Amino acid sequence: MLANELTDLLQIDYPIIQAPMAGGISTTKLVSSVSNHGGLGMIGAGYLNPPQTREQIREVRQSTGNNFGVNLFVPTSFQRSDEKVRLANDLLGPIHDLLEIEKNEISSPTNESLVESFNAQVAVVIEEKVPTCSFTFGIPSIEIIDTLKKHNIIVIGTATTVKEAMEIEKAGMDMVVVQGSEAGGHRGTFINGYHESLVGLMSLIPQVVDNVKIPVIAAGGIMDGRGLMASLCLGAKGVQMGTAFLTCVESGAHEMHKDAILHSTEDQTVLTRAFSGKWARGIKNKFIADLQEHETSFPDFPIQNSLTKDIRKAASVQNNPEFMSLWSGQSLRLAKKQTVETLMKKMIDEAAKIMNNF
Amino acid sequence: MLANELTDLLQIDYPIIQAPMAGGISTTKLVSSVSNHGGLGMIGAGYLNPPQTREQIREVRQSTGNNFGVNLFVPTSFQRSDEKVRLANDLLGPIHDLLEIEKNEISSPTNESLVESFNAQVAVVIEEKVPTCSFTFGIPSIEIIDTLKKHNIIVIGTATTVKEAMEIEKAGMDMVVVQGSEAGGHRGTFINGYHESLVGLMSLIPQVVDNVKIPVIAAGGIMDGRGLMASLCLGAKGVQMGTAFLTCVESGAHEMHKDAILHSTEDQTVLTRAFSGKWARGIKNKFIADLQEHETSFPDFPIQNSLTKDIRKAASVQNNPEFMSLWSGQSLRLAKKQTVETLMKKMIDEAAKIMNNF
Repeated sequence: MLANELTDLLQIDYPIIQAPMAGGISTTKLVSSVSNHGGLGMIGAGYLNPPQTREQIREVRQSTGNNFGVNLFVPTSFQRSDEKVRLANDLLGPIHDLLEIEKNEISSPTNESLVESFNAQVAVVIEEKVPTCSFTFGIPSIEIIDTLKKHNIIVIGTATTVKEAMEIEKAGMDMVVVQGSEAGGHRGTFINGYHESLVGLMSLIPQVVDNVKIPVIAAGGIMDGRGLMASLCLGAKGVQMGTAFLTCVESGAHEMHKDAILHSTEDQTVLTRAFSGKWARGIKNKFIADLQEHETSFPDFPIQNSLTKDIRKAASVQNNPEFMSLWSGQSLRLAKKQTVETLMKKMIDEAAKIMNNF
Repeated sequence: MLANELTDLLQIDYPIIQAPMAGGISTTKLVSSVSNHGGLGMIGAGYLNPPQTREQIREVRQSTGNNFGVNLFVPTSFQRSDEKVRLANDLLGPIHDLLEIEKNEISSPTNESLVESFNAQVAVVIEEKVPTCSFTFGIPSIEIIDTLKKHNIIVIGTATTVKEAMEIEKAGMDMVVVQGSEAGGHRGTFINGYHESLVGLMSLIPQVVDNVKIPVIAAGGIMDGRGLMASLCLGAKGVQMGTAFLTCVESGAHEMHKDAILHSTEDQTVLTRAFSGKWARGIKNKFIADLQEHETSFPDFPIQNSLTKDIRKAASVQNNPEFMSLWSGQSLRLAKKQTVETLMKKMIDEAAKIMNNF
C-alpha cells in the first residue's frame, strides 16, 4: 500500500529513509536495523575518512542483506581567515578552561585535503558496490554522478529550496531530499542564503514537486505515520527521518543527547553556526547561548568544526550536555526511546489507519 | 467526506477558513464568497473601529446567509519610547521625501484607547450575533470568552507554540488556529519569544494535537487540496488560508500586492518588524531591505504601525510595491489569480482525488 516508484527504485518495503547522521550516530546497528525492517539505512560518512567509510560499509553489509546507503559531504571551498580563527579561539578559551581541556595544536583541513578525501570516498562507494549514495552541501561533479549511475548506484541530492532541487535534477541525480526548516542538524543549503532557505515543509514539498520530475523525499520534523502520510499527500514519494531514529536504542547518539531530546519541547531548538561554521539546528544549551552574539563572525566550515572538536569530545566524556552539539529537529515532543523495529511498525500501522479513515 | 466535528461546530460544508486579513484585504465580497462556497469567511477587523466593524458585519450578512466570523486583535500593552520614535522617524524621513509625503503629526494610540476600542468591538460582535469570533495576539479575558460563549458564539484562539495552544484551551476557547512558521502576515505569538515560535507546521500540528482536546486548525503555507489533506493527516480538523485567498479576484489586496505574490518564489519572503512593530512575514522589498539592520530598534506595535501608515498609503496610491507591506506565506509558487469558487472547488476535488488514491 505504501509501495511506489521510490520504493521500487531503492528496492525497499517502505518509503522511509533513516537520515545519515554523521559523528557516530548512524552506527552499523542503527543502519542495518532500519534496512532489516524495510526502510533504507544510511551511513553518515561526512566525517569519516575513506578507510573508515569502507570499514563501516563492510560491517553494514554483514548485518543486513537489504539495501542501504552512504551519505557524503560535498566539499565546499572555504577561506581561512587568521583573524576569525584568533577570535574564535579567544571565545572558546574560557570553555576549554572550564572543561579542563589541555591546549593542543589543531590541524585544520585544507581545501585540497577535503577534495582528495571526498574523491577517495566516492571510489570506496563504487568499489564496495553500495546501492545508494546521497550528498549534502552541494552537487558533486557531473563526472562523479555519471560514474556512480554507470555502476547502478542510485544518486540522491539534498535541497532546501526549489532552485536547489531543480539544479539537482539538472545535474542528473535520481532523487532529491528536500529539507524543511523543521529539520535538525546541518542545513544542506548550497545556493540560497541562510535566511531565505528556511522554508517549512508544508510550503517546500508541493513547490518542489511541481517543479521537478524526480522523486521527492521529505525531511524535517517527520516522526511518525502522521508525518509520513502528510508528506505523501503533499506529493513526496517518501520521508527521511533523523531525530526519530536518533533517540532509538540502536543509535550511537550520546545518552545525554537522547535524554535532552526526550525532555525538550518544540520551542527549544535554535539555529547556530557555533559548533561547525555551518548553520545547524539543535537544542539551545550553554555553548550556543554563550556564543550567540558572535554567530556571524565564526570561521567557515570545517575550520570552526575542528576548533570545537576538543570541546565536544570533552563534553561527551564528562557527560556534560551543555557543551555537546544536541542536534534535533522541531518535533521533540514526539520523540520516543524505542527500537527501530517498534518505530517502523508503529509508523506503518498508523499510516494504514489514516488511509482507512479516509 | 470532509465533514468532521469542526464543520459541525462552525456549521460549514468544508473545513476551510479564510484567514482574517486586516487592512482592507478581507472585503465583504471575499468574506461572503468564501461562506457562500462552503467555507468560513472571516472579517479581519484588527484595524477597524467599532462602527466600521458593525458596518462590515451587516454588509456580509446581506451578502451571505451562511456562517462567517470576525477576527479581533487582543490589545497588547506597549511602552512608548520617545527615543525609539525619534530614531524611527529619522529612518523613515528619507522615505517620506522619496514618496513626497507631506509632514503631518501622527496621533499614536494609547493603551487605554486600544482596550476601549477592543471592548466596544466585542460588544458589536455580540450585538450583531456574529456566529464566530477569533482572536490574534493573545487571549481575551475569561469574562469576554464566557460572555461570547454564553451568546453561542464560537471562540477561536491563535497559537504559534504548544504552550500557547494549551493556554488557549485552558482559557475555555472552543478551537485553536496553529500558525506555522510558513504563515504570511503577522505572527500571533504572545507567550514565546519570536525565534522560538517559528515552528514549521509538520512539527507544530501533531505536537499541538497531542496536547489539547479542542479542534486544531492549521495555518501557514496551505494553498490547495494537498495542504488540506496533509493537515488532516497530521491531526488538524481544518485549515485557515491567507495567501491563497489574498490573490483571489474577490480580495481587496492591492493589485501590485497580488502581482508580487504571483511572480515571486518561496525564497523571497522575510520576517520584519519594520512595518508595524510586530514580526510579520512578507515579500522582501526596498522598504524592508533599507531598514533591515534596525529591526530590533523600532517602537512597539502599534506605534511603528502608525508611524509607517502614511508611507503605506502613499505607496498604494502611487502603485509602488517597494514600500507596501507585501504580506505573504512561503508558498508563493502555488498562488493563483482565480475566483473563490474555483479555489474552493479545486481544493475539494484535489482532496477527494488524494483520498481515492490511498
